[in-house]
Amino acid sequence: DFVCALDEVKPAFGASASDLDMYVGSGIIEYAPHVRDILYKSHLFAEQVRESSRSPLVSLLLHGPAGSGKTALAATIAQQSAFPFVRLVSPEAMVGFTDSQKIAAITKVFHDAYKSPLSLVVVDDIERLLEWVPIGARFSNAVLQTLLVLIKKHPPPGRRLLVVATTSERDVLAQMDLATVFSSDIYVENIGSIEALKKVVQHARLFDSAREYDGLFSSLADYLGNRSFSIGVKKLLLLIETARQDPDKHSRFMSEICALF
Amino acid sequence: DFVCALDEVKPAFGASASDLDMYVGSGIIEYAPHVRDILYKSHLFAEQVRESSRSPLVSLLLHGPAGSGKTALAATIAQQSAFPFVRLVSPEAMVGFTDSQKIAAITKVFHDAYKSPLSLVVVDDIERLLEWVPIGARFSNAVLQTLLVLIKKHPPPGRRLLVVATTSERDVLAQMDLATVFSSDIYVENIGSIEALKKVVQHARLFDSAREYDGLFSSLADYLGNRSFSIGVKKLLLLIETARQDPDKHSRFMSEICALF
Amino acid sequence: DFVCALDEVKPAFGASASDLDMYVGSGIIEYAPHVRDILYKSHLFAEQVRESSRSPLVSLLLHGPAGSGKTALAATIAQQSAFPFVRLVSPEAMVGFTDSQKIAAITKVFHDAYKSPLSLVVVDDIERLLEWVPIGARFSNAVLQTLLVLIKKHPPPGRRLLVVATTSERDVLAQMDLATVFSSDIYVENIGSIEALKKVVQHARLFDSAREYDGLFSSLADYLGNRSFSIGVKKLLLLIETARQDPDKHSRFMSEICALF
Amino acid sequence: DFVCALDEVKPAFGASASDLDMYVGSGIIEYAPHVRDILYKSHLFAEQVRESSRSPLVSLLLHGPAGSGKTALAATIAQQSAFPFVRLVSPEAMVGFTDSQKIAAITKVFHDAYKSPLSLVVVDDIERLLEWVPIGARFSNAVLQTLLVLIKKHPPPGRRLLVVATTSERDVLAQMDLATVFSSDIYVENIGSIEALKKVVQHARLFDSAREYDGLFSSLADYLGNRSFSIGVKKLLLLIETARQDPDKHSRFMSEICALF
Amino acid sequence: DFVCALDEVKPAFGASASDLDMYVGSGIIEYAPHVRDILYKSHLFAEQVRESSRSPLVSLLLHGPAGSGKTALAATIAQQSAFPFVRLVSPEAMVGFTDSQKIAAITKVFHDAYKSPLSLVVVDDIERLLEWVPIGARFSNAVLQTLLVLIKKHPPPGRRLLVVATTSERDVLAQMDLATVFSSDIYVENIGSIEALKKVVQHARLFDSAREYDGLFSSLADYLGNRSFSIGVKKLLLLIETARQDPDKHSRFMSEICALF
Amino acid sequence: DFVCALDEVKPAFGASASDLDMYVGSGIIEYAPHVRDILYKSHLFAEQVRESSRSPLVSLLLHGPAGSGKTALAATIAQQSAFPFVRLVSPEAMVGFTDSQKIAAITKVFHDAYKSPLSLVVVDDIERLLEWVPIGARFSNAVLQTLLVLIKKHPPPGRRLLVVATTSERDVLAQMDLATVFSSDIYVENIGSIEALKKVVQHARLFDSAREYDGLFSSLADYLGNRSFSIGVKKLLLLIETARQDPDKHSRFMSEICALF
Ligand SMILES: Nc1ncnc2c1ncn2[C@@H]1O[C@H](COP(=O)(O)OP(=O)(O)OP(=O)(O)O)[C@@H](O)[C@H]1O
Ligand SMILES: Nc1ncnc2c1ncn2[C@@H]1O[C@H](COP(=O)(O)OP(=O)(O)OP(=O)(O)O)[C@@H](O)[C@H]1O
Ligand SMILES: Nc1ncnc2c1ncn2[C@@H]1O[C@H](COP(=O)(O)OP(=O)(O)OP(=O)(O)O)[C@@H](O)[C@H]1O
Ligand SMILES: Nc1ncnc2c1ncn2[C@@H]1O[C@H](COP(=O)(O)OP(=O)(O)OP(=O)(O)O)[C@@H](O)[C@H]1O
Ligand SMILES: Nc1ncnc2c1ncn2[C@@H]1O[C@H](COP(=O)(O)OP(=O)(O)OP(=O)(O)O)[C@@H](O)[C@H]1O
Ligand SMILES: Nc1ncnc2c1ncn2[C@@H]1O[C@H](COP(=O)(O)OP(=O)(O)OP(=O)(O)O)[C@@H](O)[C@H]1O
Ligand SMILES: [Mg+2]
Ligand SMILES: [Mg+2]
Ligand SMILES: [Mg+2]
Ligand SMILES: [Mg+2]
Ligand SMILES: [Mg+2]
Ligand SMILES: [Mg+2]
Repeated sequence: DFVCALDEVKPAFGASASDLDMYVGSGIIEYAPHVRDILYKSHLFAEQVRESSRSPLVSLLLHGPAGSGKTALAATIAQQSAFPFVRLVSPEAMVGFTDSQKIAAITKVFHDAYKSPLSLVVVDDIERLLEWVPIGARFSNAVLQTLLVLIKKHPPPGRRLLVVATTSERDVLAQMDLATVFSSDIYVENIGSIEALKKVVQHARLFDSAREYDGLFSSLADYLGNRSFSIGVKKLLLLIETARQDPDKHSRFMSEICALF
Repeated sequence: DFVCALDEVKPAFGASASDLDMYVGSGIIEYAPHVRDILYKSHLFAEQVRESSRSPLVSLLLHGPAGSGKTALAATIAQQSAFPFVRLVSPEAMVGFTDSQKIAAITKVFHDAYKSPLSLVVVDDIERLLEWVPIGARFSNAVLQTLLVLIKKHPPPGRRLLVVATTSERDVLAQMDLATVFSSDIYVENIGSIEALKKVVQHARLFDSAREYDGLFSSLADYLGNRSFSIGVKKLLLLIETARQDPDKHSRFMSEICALF
Repeated sequence: DFVCALDEVKPAFGASASDLDMYVGSGIIEYAPHVRDILYKSHLFAEQVRESSRSPLVSLLLHGPAGSGKTALAATIAQQSAFPFVRLVSPEAMVGFTDSQKIAAITKVFHDAYKSPLSLVVVDDIERLLEWVPIGARFSNAVLQTLLVLIKKHPPPGRRLLVVATTSERDVLAQMDLATVFSSDIYVENIGSIEALKKVVQHARLFDSAREYDGLFSSLADYLGNRSFSIGVKKLLLLIETARQDPDKHSRFMSEICALF
Repeated sequence: DFVCALDEVKPAFGASASDLDMYVGSGIIEYAPHVRDILYKSHLFAEQVRESSRSPLVSLLLHGPAGSGKTALAATIAQQSAFPFVRLVSPEAMVGFTDSQKIAAITKVFHDAYKSPLSLVVVDDIERLLEWVPIGARFSNAVLQTLLVLIKKHPPPGRRLLVVATTSERDVLAQMDLATVFSSDIYVENIGSIEALKKVVQHARLFDSAREYDGLFSSLADYLGNRSFSIGVKKLLLLIETARQDPDKHSRFMSEICALF
Repeated sequence: DFVCALDEVKPAFGASASDLDMYVGSGIIEYAPHVRDILYKSHLFAEQVRESSRSPLVSLLLHGPAGSGKTALAATIAQQSAFPFVRLVSPEAMVGFTDSQKIAAITKVFHDAYKSPLSLVVVDDIERLLEWVPIGARFSNAVLQTLLVLIKKHPPPGRRLLVVATTSERDVLAQMDLATVFSSDIYVENIGSIEALKKVVQHARLFDSAREYDGLFSSLADYLGNRSFSIGVKKLLLLIETARQDPDKHSRFMSEICALF
Repeated sequence: DFVCALDEVKPAFGASASDLDMYVGSGIIEYAPHVRDILYKSHLFAEQVRESSRSPLVSLLLHGPAGSGKTALAATIAQQSAFPFVRLVSPEAMVGFTDSQKIAAITKVFHDAYKSPLSLVVVDDIERLLEWVPIGARFSNAVLQTLLVLIKKHPPPGRRLLVVATTSERDVLAQMDLATVFSSDIYVENIGSIEALKKVVQHARLFDSAREYDGLFSSLADYLGNRSFSIGVKKLLLLIETARQDPDKHSRFMSEICALF
């Protein structure tokens, strides 16, 4: 199974390997079916790049709400591809860069990728690379234009490239003509069911006994009634740690999570 | 008690210790219950950073009206944390800086923090760091992008960081996508009850006898009737000093404060 | 009496003394009660800065229509304070300065003030320092941000500072969040009564006999009926000099002033 | 036949020959009559430039939706012209260029062309050269002005020039007065009929037997009913390769293509 | 008579004397009473600057339609003042200057003026100095701010200054707060009566006999009926010269002028 | 006859002579009366500059739709003037120039002209010199301001200057206050009658026999009915050449021209 394999494989790529580890964080929890679906679909695209000589370039856009797990998934896709060349383009590595420094850094990653027969480039948090801000709709057009060209540009003959990008602002990208440049779109949902919530809390071992979990989630189900809710896995994991500090973990978790819904 | 401890503890941090003293000013007056609540909640988050290895980064946003005491509280939280590394990022230290000088200064503070196992960074008056002005909705996008990345960026493995930021313009920050970047929001209210007002005036020892205080606040209660009011502790303390200059402190205080309401 | 004292006192401050003299011009005419009120109120604030150790920083904003006498009053307040360090920040000294030159000059004045135990800084014509223009609502945000920080920044321990600023555009400053930064606002009115008008014309000795004054002001009263009017003392003094050139001073004064109302 | 000739001719032009090959990709599929029409019309204009001394300059604009095949057609027109000097101006060769670097590069191509008696310049993806983005309607006016002049500028006496440009944003170009500068406009349609679709899938040899093609396209016809659809040949070719990865190519192709319509 | 004197006086000022001659052109024609009125009023202001020690600064704004004669009048006022220091600030001398070069040039003229006991500075075509353009309401705010300060700034003790400025865009200046900075406004009208028209045509000696003039102006009166019209003296003088080229001067003059009305 | 003379005269001016030849192209066809009228009117203005010492500066603006023949006419006027100094300011010579390079080049041409007693400067395609683009109404204000001053600036004593400018955007120029700066406006119409069309096609000798022309234009008249149409002489001449390539010139001409109307 390709997902299971994921934990064993330690692909031999360059300097960026540890970076990717960092973004995977404490690992992918399979709290809902869509998690596995995303990884499978991405796996197929990686195979297409590896196998079909007529599509030397495929580009995926992972999009979804803030904290839904896009970066961790992109990093996981990169690791699971086992491509010989894997690189990460991230705004975290470019704090304080001028536009032209950003463009040079991004371009270098793609040009390096063109030198390897089979490459994968993760472009994380595109709206941040673009220095997007809703007020006044400001952003760096120079960086945008670079991405518009690079994500669509075919690698030289004999080279293949998979681009995996992430964004919380797909609508904005669409308005920039940057959404249509990708071969495919993958939506990363928030957590929206009690079962998924429970899987994450259990995985984090907030309590010691099954009874405690049942107590918590029946209270929560009572509180929510049939209202819908939505929370990112990132925020949920943080909230679990906050609750853990309190002598009364149950109440604290309830009060923190209810404040959100 | 964590709050009482506050006065005794003199944590051994670096060059910025005296800076923080300055912002605490003449100290925190517990004029209403929310003051203690804010300090307790912040204390818990500091414990989370210190204890839980799964949440190496927590960020708090103290927001509230101008002069409500945000900076003094943030400085107090920093002192009370007793973290080995504490730094202040303040617009007062950056007058006349260009965008890139500001970004370099801010980035340096965070990078220095990443070198210590347990750090706290106060980011004071975010809207001023951003050079925000309502007319034309101008601000420095370059500084904003730096904060958007740094406040969300995980410290390197083995390092932990608590970020405490202040703002009087939470709505503006929300429009810049900067509000959702924080782990938690804490609201710092203005003074809005006669009792709280009285506590501050008594603490400042404007008068010598209890009778004088009673006289003042019964006049004020009469004047206000059941209208609500709101004044920042900062403005109130200044107004007390203005009244102190006048031979007739009672009348002066009354006239100055009534001019505001 | 503090106002009378004004003429005798020649405080021993630095290079800027003669500058201030220049702006006081031919002196303050007490043409209406509000003139004395403004000077008294300002005197109290100066005392607060001098005396109360808990309010080391006070800032006043003199605002009112163009030519109402703001600059002359601010200069007079500065002289009357007799503080050992008095400086003037004026756009007239910064013609052709770049933003950063302006910021450097302004910052230097404040930093110099922080070195003296008791200082007063006049910031004249804030809208001009900001290069404000209504079309397109343009201004220098960099200068604005500097003022936003400096006017609110506490002097170092043991130093005290009174800031006296002037503007004809208080509404604009409010839209820039610059109005709320001041401790107190003082409104400088135009001349709006025949009596005040008369006091100024008499003080300027336009005519030789009381009869001539009576004639003039009864004609003017007839002309105006019960319409209200408003003229700045600055424009009025200029108009008196224009009338003085004409053989028929009476008619000339009447025609010039009626053209305005 | 001029189109058939196309495959045999290998015109002897300079450094840019291999570039053009790259953009022709796996070749032009004649999936519909308009493909041949476009190539014939372009052939006539090339003849006009070659033959008529009174029209030393002709410029064509190929426009149509993203992925409709404009670049491949422009490259093919260039090859089929067999002009001694053929050059490509493409945003892909100008990633990270400043405006003035772009202008210098574009101008050099035209000036080089003026040195040859008979030249053809392909200007690919004009909106990308202009760094166009819909949000805020931003673009490089300096590059635009360069194109506005160069596309209309007559070559020196004795020189002839055919310009072939492509764009997906003809409307935008029209708003920039850049559309009227061309001698002629040629529209490149998307694929919009089952027959054309079938020709492309067959050409790509997705299946082995005619029966399989028939099955696929009758399912598709059923699915579509009498709804119209539109897909670019570029996206269709990619989608065929994705389907090829799946054991069940038929279902995969159907599901992917139905997701688009 | 001050106006008659005008022709005799040749004041001994510096380098700018010949410049002013140039702008006076072929001289002031007294085609209507307002011409003399303007010169008289300006003369009185010059006297005020020369005589009254209490108004060391007076500033006039000549405004009116394009070509109404503002520049020629300002130059004439300057010559007629016979002040020892007279200078002209004109956009014609600043073609291609950057903002800071303009500001330096303007500031130099004023600073030079402050060195002479009695000075007059003509600031011609303010909207052009400001690089004003109606589309997008663009202008140089830096130059504007310089003028806003310099036109209001008092000369040093013992120095006197008369500023005479011209503009065709008084409304725009008012929106820039530049109109209220002047001590006085003077309106320069276009020609709007047959008599004034006739005076100019006669002064230019277009015809040889009185009969011809009468013929022309009665035709014109017939043509116009009781419609009003308006033409600048500058355009009228040019039109007369155009007519002079034609064998049939009468018809040509009629057709050209009727095309305007 | 001044127009006939045109072909013979080869005025002895400098480096720019061949440039002008180039823009005249294959010559002026007198396809309608307005062509001769324009040349005659321009001739008179040239005489005015040459003869009348009171109008040393005249400036003409040729405006009309794209391709109506403005540049060719301006070049012809320049040649026909036989002035000793003739220069062309054209955007084609300034591709890639910065604003200040453009301004320097334009200014140099005018300053050179001021050195000759009798000069003519053609300023071609003003909107292109200004880098005008309708989206966002962008243009170079610095170049605009230069033209606003230079086109109105009188040459030094003893020098005379005729300026002939062209534009397709008279309305835009009017909004920039650039239209009123010219002494006179001349409208260059498109071709709008069958007769004019016929004159051009015959002049280009598309066919060999009168019968063929008659056939063509009667078909065209049938096609058009009483609809009006408009085509620039430039486009028409190109279209004739396109038709010439086709074996069936008649049909091709008809189909191309009908596609336009
Ligand atoms: N199924 C999952 N998918 C994604 N992340 C998961 C999953 N399970 C656990 N996680 C953890 O949740 C966190 C998701 O955070 P991540 O930074 O990837 O979110 P994000 O969507 O990129 O956030 P942001 O919008 O702020 O960039 C990671 O720490 C990851 O280890
Ligand atoms: N309970 C309290 N909370 C906060 N400040 C207090 C309190 N009691 C007294 N103070 C004093 O009130 C002042 C609050 O001013 P502070 O600068 O912290 O306000 P602020 O909200 O940061 O103002 P601004 O919006 O202008 O930045 C300080 O001098 C502080 O010592
Ligand atoms: N009571 C008074 N208050 C102020 N100024 C007075 C008074 N009496 C006389 N003056 C004189 O009136 C003039 C006021 O001009 P001043 O420049 O101070 O006005 P301003 O309001 O600063 O004008 P602006 O809005 O143009 O900056 C000075 O010359 C001053 O000497
Ligand atoms: N008839 C055809 N016309 C054009 N391209 C075709 C045709 N048949 C097959 N192709 C192939 O389809 C692809 C068309 O892609 P191309 O890049 O030319 O499209 P495009 O319209 O320029 O896209 P974009 O809008 O993204 O620039 C090429 O790989 C080309 O080989
Ligand atoms: N009474 C008059 N007033 C002004 N100018 C006159 C008069 N009589 C004749 N002239 C002549 O008319 C011309 C007026 O042109 P001038 O340049 O002064 O007008 P202007 O209003 O400054 O024009 P613009 O608005 O273009 O700057 C000058 O040549 C001047 O000699
Ligand atoms: N009567 C005519 N008037 C103008 N041009 C003519 C005439 N007869 C023939 N021509 C030819 O028509 C062409 C007109 O093109 P020209 O470049 O002058 O037009 P334009 O209006 O300047 O175009 P654009 O708006 O693109 O600048 C020239 O080649 C010229 O030789
Ligand atoms: Mg992320
Ligand atoms: Mg604060
Ligand atoms: Mg003032
Ligand atoms: Mg393309
Ligand atoms: Mg003028
Ligand atoms: Mg032209």
